[in-house]
Amino acid sequence: MQRFARDDLFDLAHSLLTGGGLDPEKARVVADLLIRTDELGVTTHGISMVSYYLPELASGRMTSDGRHEVVTDRGATQVWDGNYLPGHWVMTHALDAAMARARDTGIAAIAIRRSHHIGCLSTLTRIAALQGQICYIATSDPSGQWVAPYGGVEPLLTPNPWAIGYPGGDHPVLIDTCASITTVSKVREHINSGTQFAHPWMLDAEGNATTDPNVVNATPKGSILPVGGMDHGHKGFAMSLMVEMLTQGLSGHGRVEAPDRWGANVFLQVMDPAAFAGAGAFEAQVDHLNAACRDSTPVPGRGPVRIPGDRAASAMAAAETQGIALPDEVLTRIRNCAQTAGLGFPAALA
Amino acid sequence: MQRFARDDLFDLAHSLLTGGGLDPEKARVVADLLIRTDELGVTTHGISMVSYYLPELASGRMTSDGRHEVVTDRGATQVWDGNYLPGHWVMTHALDAAMARARDTGIAAIAIRRSHHIGCLSTLTRIAALQGQICYIATSDPSGQWVAPYGGVEPLLTPNPWAIGYPGGDHPVLIDTCASITTVSKVREHINSGTQFAHPWMLDAEGNATTDPNVVNATPKGSILPVGGMDHGHKGFAMSLMVEMLTQGLSGHGRVEAPDRWGANVFLQVMDPAAFAGAGAFEAQVDHLNAACRDSTPVPGRGPVRIPGDRAASAMAAAETQGIALPDEVLTRIRNCAQTAGLGFPAALA
Repeated sequence: MQRFARDDLFDLAHSLLTGGGLDPEKARVVADLLIRTDELGVTTHGISMVSYYLPELASGRMTSDGRHEVVTDRGATQVWDGNYLPGHWVMTHALDAAMARARDTGIAAIAIRRSHHIGCLSTLTRIAALQGQICYIATSDPSGQWVAPYGGVEPLLTPNPWAIGYPGGDHPVLIDTCASITTVSKVREHINSGTQFAHPWMLDAEGNATTDPNVVNATPKGSILPVGGMDHGHKGFAMSLMVEMLTQGLSGHGRVEAPDRWGANVFLQVMDPAAFAGAGAFEAQVDHLNAACRDSTPVPGRGPVRIPGDRAASAMAAAETQGIALPDEVLTRIRNCAQTAGLGFPAALA
Repeated sequence: MQRFARDDLFDLAHSLLTGGGLDPEKARVVADLLIRTDELGVTTHGISMVSYYLPELASGRMTSDGRHEVVTDRGATQVWDGNYLPGHWVMTHALDAAMARARDTGIAAIAIRRSHHIGCLSTLTRIAALQGQICYIATSDPSGQWVAPYGGVEPLLTPNPWAIGYPGGDHPVLIDTCASITTVSKVREHINSGTQFAHPWMLDAEGNATTDPNVVNATPKGSILPVGGMDHGHKGFAMSLMVEMLTQGLSGHGRVEAPDRWGANVFLQVMDPAAFAGAGAFEAQVDHLNAACRDSTPVPGRGPVRIPGDRAASAMAAAETQGIALPDEVLTRIRNCAQTAGLGFPAALA
């Protein structure tokens, strides 16, 4: 683990992306959000993503220039086609559009088909929450099959992340979760490091729960268990169906078209508390409950109860004073990208 | 288990409720939805609820006459005060209002404070789904404390049910779940029958997972575990915070006011697929995924994968041809109510 200056990491990410062919303005938006993600402590989805995006740019599977298309617009609802543009860029525009409309109508939603990967959801919801809005984002990739329906053994669904951010006193509440117990990134981490999960969060192709991440590479393929696992996984499966419906049903594109490329379907919704009982009343209820939870007696041997977003706020505060911390795995990956591109690597902070 | 004619059960519920002082038109709406809930096979929330509502009517804690108040109205968003009126009646009006607005603006939401109990959520979402709409309902009771925040031992939250219904081919998809693993009704059932849960879904006041439902009556009180339990309960806790925020934050009433009576705060949202990529495109994606799930290979020894709403559709079909099935526990409870009220009890179907 080493710490770096924000500007240095931004410059590196920006140079790598423009070097990979991405239009400089889009590269600016993507690099800024990737570094913000590292600042929030979600280093699986920060600058390290550049190493996955560069081959996509090189092959043309991530579109390097142009704009999304507005397919339908009814004011408070829209459908966009993201044209496989970088998801951070698409989402920045979608957030602006949805927030502007929600301030007018109180609520607004955009369903997006064919974006490329949108990165860390809470980095995005946080933008709206800092402006007083409630922001919900769900995403699926109709080309991916990692999670089996509850009661079945064939992976048919993606982990289907969803997040909601909203104002919450000192810093926003940032819920960022998914419909499966664990994620594809975590599965890859365990496979790469040769380790097992601490709990039986995987399902082999015979329908047995297991801690072994390698079942996803077996023939026939195993899968990631839905939230709730073997005994109440119908709850995670239900969440997963909801995310597929919101992201693919509403955008009118998905598993029917069976895309074979990495992509992101997105459902974005913004609500303005001022259009309901008011921002003050909203924050009073949220702050009251958050305080009660934080002040409650912890399970023996554990630290205090945390509200989602508390850890991100601490990471952000540390990054501001000490620089951005990157783990060795990320450093190795990005050093390789820099070397391939003939770029220098920034010096770590003392 | 015995089966009864719909009209007979409706007449009994209606007579019990009007006898309890409820305005006849409200009793008609409540009785109809309770019997519909039994028809859908959710007998914990059907006619048996009358036995809980009668004492509430008698004490005036369920309001027997009058209307809800519209607190704010911005077109696509509203806040209502339910004045502790019967929740089925309040929700019937809220559904009508939200569906009418969603057909215009594509999306509409109503946050409701101080309703009384709204019953089975999927009975309500189904109404909108049968009309082609996507309907999300979440509810909390700010007077209740049954679920501890993840990492804590003090119950601070309600199970916080949420449901989403949407068109899905032969019958609607009816997701109806909550943020805790199990429900207060199930805990009461196990306590009454002297049985343990099959899995450790409870938490004692020392922070140990247990199958014992009686921990909720211990001093200090135990609690129901959030979805995900001991190893990934942060996911259920996040869901729970979201439901409290939507239902109490947006309605501007909740745990800050610390009500000491049974009530329901509600968040209702309706979306019209026609305002997005169109009803046809929506159903194509939903039907495709549902078929893939239903057709997938089941875990050995289990039946086929079910989509939420499949069981309700079977129960409804059986009720239509054979009458409505009520379990003995419900019959005992309702027979007692009828006897106390001096009403006859309908004959079971042969």
